[in-house]
Amino acid sequence: MITCSLLDHEGRIFALQRELAAESVDLALLFHRDNIRYFTGFRINKVVSSILAIPRAGAPTYIVARLDMERAKRDCWISNLLAFPEDTPDILSALDPLLAPAVKRIGVERGVITLEQAEFLMNRCSQQVSLVDVQPLVDRLRLIKSVPEIERLRESARIASLVMRAIQADLKPGLIEAEVAASVEPMLVKEGAEGTSFETFMTSGSNAWLPQRVTVRKPVQDGEMILLDMGGVYDGYCSDITRTLSTDGLTRDQHRLFDAARRAHDAALETIRPGVVAEQVDAAARDLLRAEGYGDCFPHLTGHGIGLSAHEGPIVDERVRTVLQPGMVFTVEPGAYVPGVGAARIEDMVLVTETGYEMLTDAPTAIE
Amino acid sequence: MITCSLLDHEGRIFALQRELAAESVDLALLFHRDNIRYFTGFRINKVVSSILAIPRAGAPTYIVARLDMERAKRDCWISNLLAFPEDTPDILSALDPLLAPAVKRIGVERGVITLEQAEFLMNRCSQQVSLVDVQPLVDRLRLIKSVPEIERLRESARIASLVMRAIQADLKPGLIEAEVAASVEPMLVKEGAEGTSFETFMTSGSNAWLPQRVTVRKPVQDGEMILLDMGGVYDGYCSDITRTLSTDGLTRDQHRLFDAARRAHDAALETIRPGVVAEQVDAAARDLLRAEGYGDCFPHLTGHGIGLSAHEGPIVDERVRTVLQPGMVFTVEPGAYVPGVGAARIEDMVLVTETGYEMLTDAPTAIE
Repeated sequence: MITCSLLDHEGRIFALQRELAAESVDLALLFHRDNIRYFTGFRINKVVSSILAIPRAGAPTYIVARLDMERAKRDCWISNLLAFPEDTPDILSALDPLLAPAVKRIGVERGVITLEQAEFLMNRCSQQVSLVDVQPLVDRLRLIKSVPEIERLRESARIASLVMRAIQADLKPGLIEAEVAASVEPMLVKEGAEGTSFETFMTSGSNAWLPQRVTVRKPVQDGEMILLDMGGVYDGYCSDITRTLSTDGLTRDQHRLFDAARRAHDAALETIRPGVVAEQVDAAARDLLRAEGYGDCFPHLTGHGIGLSAHEGPIVDERVRTVLQPGMVFTVEPGAYVPGVGAARIEDMVLVTETGYEMLTDAPTAIE
Repeated sequence: MITCSLLDHEGRIFALQRELAAESVDLALLFHRDNIRYFTGFRINKVVSSILAIPRAGAPTYIVARLDMERAKRDCWISNLLAFPEDTPDILSALDPLLAPAVKRIGVERGVITLEQAEFLMNRCSQQVSLVDVQPLVDRLRLIKSVPEIERLRESARIASLVMRAIQADLKPGLIEAEVAASVEPMLVKEGAEGTSFETFMTSGSNAWLPQRVTVRKPVQDGEMILLDMGGVYDGYCSDITRTLSTDGLTRDQHRLFDAARRAHDAALETIRPGVVAEQVDAAARDLLRAEGYGDCFPHLTGHGIGLSAHEGPIVDERVRTVLQPGMVFTVEPGAYVPGVGAARIEDMVLVTETGYEMLTDAPTAIE
């Protein structure tokens, strides 16, 4: 396991507070576990809630379930900790001390907070408050990765690549999609990951070209094109890699499809450098697939940012005007799905550098 | 693998429609994947959204991501299917055809729908609409399990018990918490499960008594009490089982703690039969732990319902007045956590029968 340099959680709080001041937000209340981990470094299990309260100035307060309190005291840098009882309808009652009458504009993640939570929150305030969206402010901070974040993403990508190589080496006809997919997490964990960054997808033959996005108890067979899409989490940071696999080589039609997907992937990569607009990266892949006759067979985006979340900014797709900058990390994953033939997608993670890009994932793409 | 009898998805829709009529709800829009699976039988992967629209009368409409459309056509019994493009801010635009001016009261899961979704929805209606909570109506339907559901829960519990036994048999000092936990899913899948029903928790020694609810790279050691809490999903239905483990037997203090937790579990079980109130089941466990001097060491509920969700109704806790009825399925999991000594919890799944209960999980509780 590598040792990574420290993440600057407190500096991130200050950076957000500058944004809060600029937007006249009195208090930000964050509910999303990835946003919370960005500022706290604290790992919360997937079924538990917590709330991070960041005032426009001064120290943040972290509200955790009673059962997580002792661990938070030990492991979290934030010293203002409040507990809420679990399994109660209104976990927000713990917020009362923070909702002073002067708090008028509360920043929330409007795409995360539920309607019920929003109403509980409004009802707990004696004053009129408005709930403004702070997700864009947090997204802006998270969009450019710091050196310690890049170290973690590199390690996360290294682990995922290693597991991909192991599965590529062992694939044979008769293996069950669901069993191969389930074998990914133990391998990731063995190498130091916390777990998978998303549900592992393995789909083969008609399941792949459908495209079917659940993994089932189907054996992989000779003659099929097989997709494996997976990633791990290393110290909070996600990886994501896809390879197209085969147990016995490709037919001529399959090879043409695979080759188009690979060249679309390479064409997108070639465009990546600071100053380029995200839609240009997408267009490079999309135009190539269109020229090869697969224009109607590429029904998704070319890429998405990756960090504490498996999907975050920047989105690389049609009509996305985000300008690439050094420190952005995203996937490149054009694919094509042709009923009766197969499915082909190659996905890698790239870091935008000062002069171009660096590939973070590393596993063979070739099919013998 | 067993073959289970058919689930009556259409009958469930009719049952909800009777409730909608009684509550004067014109249209229910369900977003939660477990609620949606209850009515559709359709499995959606964890990172994708879909919306099930159930009018007060007439056929439901299922709105799925464009990428899931072909699979929905093949596998879902609902014939009205609409597609939404992914990676757009407003997936709700696909709902427009359903939001006729006569639709005034829209039922949503208020604890699921986000503030952003609620506002998009309001904005898409030309008329004034109110968003009423239909989660309680759906909960009421899901609370009592049908025979086909019980078959699936029994199989899910059987698979989890089998994996628990395998881990009990192989546990030895030096194994890493995170690696043991990660080994659970492949074993579940091998036996026919779709995957885990929640993040597997293995905690040992001070991680267990903290109580720490994340699994880390700590080796389990002689002298420690170890908790393993896990479950699988079989055809959508969850299981959940916990055992207290040890690699070399218990000290006298640890044994006293373990024995109290086991007797609290048994005392709770003994109360279970139709007509009993949930808080009475809780009290049986809580009173026993209190009498043994562990009153302050049991910081959670005694049990929770389980079905398509790993946590659902009925909740078995203090001040919960739900009356037990045949067909309810829930966990019994009192525990005690004593710094410097250890942690003990035994969790089983039970089905309320006409005359008492049936235990669905089955793995040894004894520690040699």
